[in-house]
Amino acid sequence: MKRSKSLDVLMECLARLPGIGPKTSERLAYYLLRVPNREALALATAIEEAVHSVRVCSTCFNLDEVDPCRVCADDERDRGVILVVEDPRDVTPFMDTGFTGLFHVLQGRLSSIEGIGPDDLTIGALVSRSDPGVVREVCLATNPDLEGEATASLVAERLKKKGVKVTRLARGLPAGSTIGQVSRSILSDAVEGRRPL
Amino acid sequence: MKRSKSLDVLMECLARLPGIGPKTSERLAYYLLRVPNREALALATAIEEAVHSVRVCSTCFNLDEVDPCRVCADDERDRGVILVVEDPRDVTPFMDTGFTGLFHVLQGRLSSIEGIGPDDLTIGALVSRSDPGVVREVCLATNPDLEGEATASLVAERLKKKGVKVTRLARGLPAGSTIGQVSRSILSDAVEGRRPL
Repeated sequence: MKRSKSLDVLMECLARLPGIGPKTSERLAYYLLRVPNREALALATAIEEAVHSVRVCSTCFNLDEVDPCRVCADDERDRGVILVVEDPRDVTPFMDTGFTGLFHVLQGRLSSIEGIGPDDLTIGALVSRSDPGVVREVCLATNPDLEGEATASLVAERLKKKGVKVTRLARGLPAGSTIGQVSRSILSDAVEGRRPL
Repeated sequence: MKRSKSLDVLMECLARLPGIGPKTSERLAYYLLRVPNREALALATAIEEAVHSVRVCSTCFNLDEVDPCRVCADDERDRGVILVVEDPRDVTPFMDTGFTGLFHVLQGRLSSIEGIGPDDLTIGALVSRSDPGVVREVCLATNPDLEGEATASLVAERLKKKGVKVTRLARGLPAGSTIGQVSRSILSDAVEGRRPL
């Protein structure tokens, strides 16, 4: 005799989420059955609402409930600068820094291991929208790791052919760090990128 | 400008789950929006189905889609032995060992830190159903830790007053372990519980 069928199905669905193993999915499923129904159903409704209302912006590939997204549609923003990120999750942190330009979400990065090539990313759309008459600068904000750098190189190459100025986020010491604690590659970046005062 | 509202709501709902922090809830929310709609909606439906169909058995407090649950209703099982567990999740592992008796789920354990006292558990119902004319043995399978032991002691005391035989799960070396690697308390348990061959 096994667990009740609907509990099993719930555990299977939860276990399909990234980073959720069988033990965690069991814990979450029993949790959802223990809390007041209204709380568990709020999660179900939130999933349905988000799935039905959130869409991909056809200009920048960010997620929003409207297309073009509110960032692309905002006339107050500087249309001359595009910040290119790998993932839609990266947009909010840059918005929070006070960056006033537009975004472009690549929807991933080059990865030979995962079999992700240039055509799997939104590079073509970025090149198309980067009209040198309007766009003064495209800043590549892919992650400072091997795959992020490879992606940035490829994107930079394609954009330069169009005559667009391309920049890359600064690398160096993370604010608040201690020199004795950071890795050698961080220190190398900091020395290499040193600036006059 | 912030993230889309329905995405925010989804992240908040996910972050209410135990062990899911803000970063994980963000990752899960974006994951649910990236996969095919059908997969995300399957989770929403599974939550709704489980919430609506799973109930607490009024005899043993296990979870099932029927009341009494299929274990309590199964005439093939030995009604003379009741295995007492803290949590409904503990039922399946014992079923898998081939245990043929009935269960009783305490719905927790005594915990002064969490403010859980005897009246918050299903001890009264266990004592009521433990009729010495039918039940030959009640085996306490609470966890082998401080709170589990305290809970077992209290339950044992109440059951003994009714004249029911009470047992406790064996403590000792876990199968497959290495003596040099296990803790001192495990070794003490193993020595104390040693048996003639």
